Amino acid sequence: MLQISFIPEKEIHRILSAQLSEDVTLRIISAICRVNAFSAVKLAGSGHLGSSFSAMDLFTYLYFHELNVRTVGVEHPDRDIFFSSKGHDCPGQYSVLVAAGIIPYSKLLKLRRFGGLDGHPDVKIPGMEINSGSLGMGISKAKGMAIAKKLSGSSGKIIVMTGDGELQEGQIWESLQTTAHQKVSNIIVLVDRNRIQTDKRVSEIIEIDSLERKFEAFGWHAQTCDGHDFSAIRKAFETAHAVADRPKAIIAETIKGCGISFMEGERALRDSGGLYRWHAGAPDDDSYENGFTELLNTLNSMLKENGIVPVTCAVEKTQEKNRQQLKNVAEKVVAAYGDALVELGAERSDIVVLDADLSADCGVRGFEKAYPCRFIENGIAEQDMVSTAGGLALHGYLPVVNSFGVFLSSRANEQIYANASENTKIIYACHYAGLIPAGPGKSHQSLRDISLFGALPNCIIAEPCNAVETRELVRWCVNKADSTCMIRLVISPSPRTIDLPENYVFEYGKGTVLADGADAAVIAYGPVMLNEALTAQELLAKQGINIKVINMPWLNRIDTDWLVSALGAVRQVFVMDNHFSYGGLGDLILKTVALTPELRSVTVTKCAVDTYPACGTPAEALAHHHLDGKSIASKVLNVVTPV
Amino acid sequence: MLQISFIPEKEIHRILSAQLSEDVTLRIISAICRVNAFSAVKLAGSGHLGSSFSAMDLFTYLYFHELNVRTVGVEHPDRDIFFSSKGHDCPGQYSVLVAAGIIPYSKLLKLRRFGGLDGHPDVKIPGMEINSGSLGMGISKAKGMAIAKKLSGSSGKIIVMTGDGELQEGQIWESLQTTAHQKVSNIIVLVDRNRIQTDKRVSEIIEIDSLERKFEAFGWHAQTCDGHDFSAIRKAFETAHAVADRPKAIIAETIKGCGISFMEGERALRDSGGLYRWHAGAPDDDSYENGFTELLNTLNSMLKENGIVPVTCAVEKTQEKNRQQLKNVAEKVVAAYGDALVELGAERSDIVVLDADLSADCGVRGFEKAYPCRFIENGIAEQDMVSTAGGLALHGYLPVVNSFGVFLSSRANEQIYANASENTKIIYACHYAGLIPAGPGKSHQSLRDISLFGALPNCIIAEPCNAVETRELVRWCVNKADSTCMIRLVISPSPRTIDLPENYVFEYGKGTVLADGADAAVIAYGPVMLNEALTAQELLAKQGINIKVINMPWLNRIDTDWLVSALGAVRQVFVMDNHFSYGGLGDLILKTVALTPELRSVTVTKCAVDTYPACGTPAEALAHHHLDGKSIASKVLNVVTPV
Repeated sequence: MLQISFIPEKEIHRILSAQLSEDVTLRIISAICRVNAFSAVKLAGSGHLGSSFSAMDLFTYLYFHELNVRTVGVEHPDRDIFFSSKGHDCPGQYSVLVAAGIIPYSKLLKLRRFGGLDGHPDVKIPGMEINSGSLGMGISKAKGMAIAKKLSGSSGKIIVMTGDGELQEGQIWESLQTTAHQKVSNIIVLVDRNRIQTDKRVSEIIEIDSLERKFEAFGWHAQTCDGHDFSAIRKAFETAHAVADRPKAIIAETIKGCGISFMEGERALRDSGGLYRWHAGAPDDDSYENGFTELLNTLNSMLKENGIVPVTCAVEKTQEKNRQQLKNVAEKVVAAYGDALVELGAERSDIVVLDADLSADCGVRGFEKAYPCRFIENGIAEQDMVSTAGGLALHGYLPVVNSFGVFLSSRANEQIYANASENTKIIYACHYAGLIPAGPGKSHQSLRDISLFGALPNCIIAEPCNAVETRELVRWCVNKADSTCMIRLVISPSPRTIDLPENYVFEYGKGTVLADGADAAVIAYGPVMLNEALTAQELLAKQGINIKVINMPWLNRIDTDWLVSALGAVRQVFVMDNHFSYGGLGDLILKTVALTPELRSVTVTKCAVDTYPACGTPAEALAHHHLDGKSIASKVLNVVTPV
Repeated sequence: MLQISFIPEKEIHRILSAQLSEDVTLRIISAICRVNAFSAVKLAGSGHLGSSFSAMDLFTYLYFHELNVRTVGVEHPDRDIFFSSKGHDCPGQYSVLVAAGIIPYSKLLKLRRFGGLDGHPDVKIPGMEINSGSLGMGISKAKGMAIAKKLSGSSGKIIVMTGDGELQEGQIWESLQTTAHQKVSNIIVLVDRNRIQTDKRVSEIIEIDSLERKFEAFGWHAQTCDGHDFSAIRKAFETAHAVADRPKAIIAETIKGCGISFMEGERALRDSGGLYRWHAGAPDDDSYENGFTELLNTLNSMLKENGIVPVTCAVEKTQEKNRQQLKNVAEKVVAAYGDALVELGAERSDIVVLDADLSADCGVRGFEKAYPCRFIENGIAEQDMVSTAGGLALHGYLPVVNSFGVFLSSRANEQIYANASENTKIIYACHYAGLIPAGPGKSHQSLRDISLFGALPNCIIAEPCNAVETRELVRWCVNKADSTCMIRLVISPSPRTIDLPENYVFEYGKGTVLADGADAAVIAYGPVMLNEALTAQELLAKQGINIKVINMPWLNRIDTDWLVSALGAVRQVFVMDNHFSYGGLGDLILKTVALTPELRSVTVTKCAVDTYPACGTPAEALAHHHLDGKSIASKVLNVVTPV
């Protein structure tokens, strides 16, 4: 059996009450927090360990030496401000905030759970100063805060951590330029320079070196220090504080995954053939046990050296080891997408695939390996990626542009518009579409992408429901579509494979009836919502209510005749959107109903996300937004009475 | 009387056929093109002269020395590529393309007219390689083209011009970083370093100096030259061509407005108390005559020196001098907006106004002068501006963020989402909303902004119809709204002031009946569309058809009871959107109709923009999109028969 264990609050208090030199104390706190962050991510089932660990000594130094928040509190107007712009390192920051008594210990056990600690920073969590998770915004936000402090006469310094891969984002350079010009000198940027981004070296993705030189050319004071040496960190901050006339950067050289030997940068890269495995995701059971043992041994050795009794851990969860994971067996539309691209890449030499440092997550590693000359790794620079695609398209190529939907559709929105206005054809793949997985939180859940592409007059938007439909859709977009296409794809493994009927035909503007019934219809798209729709259908069937379930992959074009025929005599229609209520399929059906005389007697009920998406497990998030099968069944029961 | 004159094609041919040294030829061509660009802008009534003139010698050098397009043509795969990323300098580029025989001369007389030359570059125009007008995308697009040339084995160099203010955009730095890393060395960036952006010095807005140092730190070769000295330009290009291992930058030091003494950088700044008047807009009649005379004298002196007969100009238009301009007498909602902010600034010390180098156009110069400490000029860095506003809002301030809607809503979309997800309150003012003025073209016409804000679950969107409603709305957003607001404002002077009834009350979610009638209803918002709606009403009244005209300023919230009551017995409803069809008021009304039993018998006809917006005069664009009063009247006549 696998045990997931934490260092409990009273043990932390015991150790912190020991009289030790500051550096020893900081090292011990850091070691404690590594244990707790590691277990929190294992318990959550996901989270970012690599940069939590590279930044851990910095977090510890900040909260236990540099910042005044443990004294004045995290609400005080004169407090020192610290936040991480990259944000995905929050398991590390949370564990330090727990050790500092700012976040309640009990919350740490609810990382990425509903009502717990969000997968990326959120201001509702004590000590978290901004919402983050989308990169590049931190220095700008810090500047706003620094100006606010100046206007209000509040004291307190402002420190913002960035990643190094994050420096590929253009907004960083905007903010460096404006901050220096506006003479906002009360900011220290702390770069967690761990030299590895999602799963490759920064120098392989997009090199960002000459950092001191760049900061200085942008009018900043810059210096470099060892980000795991507390006296070096202290000295760097002292130097920075002595500079009053400019904003300051400290480049902290760190080791990604620092603290667990097999997760540490260079070794981890060697072990996995140049790919870094520990950026995101929980460790498997064996790695958890090995890593936990190593972290605990490190801590207990330090305690022993300093005459302190070793820690007693608290087991929070015991579970069967090496259970089969859904992700290892279930169908994944993203894999089908990647396979289709590889096939099409052989058929058409004009396809060029672009990626923004999410090659594996976006399923394009296969294409990357098969056609390296037609694969462009563009780093975390979505705007540049999209305009690069625009240039390729103007010169006869068919670019397929990949990123998470939440980033691609919004960060590069104006670039997408400019490209589309040139009437070239580009395929945008918005990955991680929709509510699920809900663990990473609202910076990652893409629920606006349909609306962000919707007003392009020449863009087709669709989401496939399973692997078969994914291949059909990708082939159709490449070979048949006469304009730009946006494909949205869920990233999670399918809870069930959506079975298509034997007579299934993939046709533009038309959907497929998956289950027949006369009492009501549920129209949905994609594996996540169709699974819930079919669950509702099964629940209702037990009560003698038979509903039609319709898969409608086309999200901004609808064949009205098909809809009239597909609905038949059904007048109660529920439309599920894996998207905000505005601008999704529900709106499309509502508009079609209002404009189609034959459908005038249809009553449409929209089922969509109406508030910022919940963070939690899939079941928690779906239930919270009333988009789980049970909620849908109950909505149907409100209007259809069982016989 | 004022005469607008051009140097006609046959005169250009005559001069070009003279046997002269290259530098003299280039100087003469440049002088010819300055005359024609100046007159084209005067004839068009708008356009960007300042940077057309700073870049003119560069354009001339490129097309008459550097590029092979005059030989191989502008469609050849091996052609050299040149385009301007800033794009608003296209009157200058067009005039050179006309002199080079690439754009037909007749088109120059149709600058900013329907079927003529767009106000910003468009690929449908011969020789224009990209659509531009929104800043910062050019280097990325050039990179895509360079990669395409490499993949296809086509030859030809790639040169892209940027502005200097444009270097404030983050995408520039993304693209510099990726281009160097990806070893795309077949690109020369040519910076038109005229040191003045919209109407102030770059050094006053956001300084971007140490340019060579910055380019070099980003892995580029960089050098500086005099952008008005042809031999210096030639030498710089020769040096750049000799560098094979890196992308190259040439910083061309230029003079904004070069060629007309009173438009030239330093003098023009002195003449107008530090503001530069000639960035955009046509010269007034006296300035036109004086400028034309100076340009012509310069040209004729050169011709004389070289033994060539002076040019004979062709008068293209004669018009009364110093006619009264609509812009000088009509109501402007943007002025009312600015006044309201100044008033509110006195009442509330928490208001901070942010601007992205469009202070005058956005009506916030008054606030800037009244409360300089609470005004943040952020330069052309919209993402940074929006996140800075986020930081201010988190610390208790009420930021009012300004830019053109097309830039603000799209370039900074993800930043707006991140801010809104923090549940702070920010007011976003999307200026230049909608189709009009249509001269600048699709990069400037904001027709997606409602859809881009629409899926934020906590954002109120509204557009006021006149000065009175603007003041009401701004006060309401500042003092009453409990969440983020987006205010869209047209930039043009109102063709008529929309009269509000005596019983007018400004109420959330409710509109106002402006004209009563029982045959049909037209629902619209904002001065542009309401003017057309009222025009339709007047036209129809002459035929005995009485339509209701309803002003509905709220674009994503509607009080259903109010709508039911406002429509009364009317069943034919036309909704006009100064926006793309998707996601605007038409969709909101359609959805409301579909969800409201009392409205089920209402037939809704959406009148909106369905294709990329036309470039032209207001009348041309409105008619093209069937959004002028006459088209609306005719749509009503399709369903309502005159008695």
